[in-house]
Amino acid sequence: MREVEETKIIYSGKVVKLRIDYLKDGGKKIREVVEHPGAVAVLPILSGDRVLLVRQYRYPIDEWILEVPAGTLKNGESPEKCALRELEEETGYRAGILKKMLTIYPCPGYSTESIHIFVAYQLEKTVQRLEEDEELTVVEMSVDEAIRELLNNDVADSKTLLALLYYKYVYRGLQ
Amino acid sequence: MREVEETKIIYSGKVVKLRIDYLKDGGKKIREVVEHPGAVAVLPILSGDRVLLVRQYRYPIDEWILEVPAGTLKNGESPEKCALRELEEETGYRAGILKKMLTIYPCPGYSTESIHIFVAYQLEKTVQRLEEDEELTVVEMSVDEAIRELLNNDVADSKTLLALLYYKYVYRGLQ
Repeated sequence: MREVEETKIIYSGKVVKLRIDYLKDGGKKIREVVEHPGAVAVLPILSGDRVLLVRQYRYPIDEWILEVPAGTLKNGESPEKCALRELEEETGYRAGILKKMLTIYPCPGYSTESIHIFVAYQLEKTVQRLEEDEELTVVEMSVDEAIRELLNNDVADSKTLLALLYYKYVYRGLQ
Repeated sequence: MREVEETKIIYSGKVVKLRIDYLKDGGKKIREVVEHPGAVAVLPILSGDRVLLVRQYRYPIDEWILEVPAGTLKNGESPEKCALRELEEETGYRAGILKKMLTIYPCPGYSTESIHIFVAYQLEKTVQRLEEDEELTVVEMSVDEAIRELLNNDVADSKTLLALLYYKYVYRGLQ
């Protein structure tokens, strides 16, 4: 880390925490950093190459977009536990097998966030339990249909397209 | 957009702008939104399937990571103009051909940012011109070497891995 003269917490909210670092180098250099606890995303695989995705309303972009089930790490929670929890809360399915595929930085220029992307198998129906600010519906489609829909949209959710392309073209060949 | 009772700008800086919307629904619901002007990323293709990437120091994560050349849209700038500018500033190469591959939302849960991802051909050497807060070195490698390095790292830059996987497995088949 570059040497920091002073740090100021600008805002500490429910989702976003913003801090400014004043660098120790004689100038007036600052760095603006969104602090994020980290997140998970899960690609849930049903039989026959079909996947469970969610159509979710995202307030910042004011759009319903196609996404893998995902969520933010709670304090002290492991990525695996968070992935199983978010999958069950958002889709109403419990996974028998969960495997890590990869971890990504979505916006390393201004955010500390990393997203752990898992694949889940052996899905068993339980009950969906959405949080107050979640608006989503669960959809089932094939991997190819999901990729096609994301690429046909003007803008695709990054973690979702990456999870699908990685699963289809890299991960399955490794198994 | 959900009905908003009041909007408060918490911070308006060089990179990050944070606003809070107080929703009009009787409760105390708020939405925290990082406003972002949008960004571009460019996968520059040399002859023989070799690509130009940058190893860049990213302050928020305190790491040097492998990335495609990328940057933020300036006021009124088109994505294409921004892509050509950032490519030349960061790598010292001017592109003869620039084509849009796809556009992604990196963090639709809390940020308005979208990233337009381009592929660039017919590269001609000019001069690198880094901004004050940019620390990077240019590297040349094959598409496969780049994918391998990103997957061998603990955490990969999202837009870069997506640009490479999309280029290798989808885009080239479309040409």
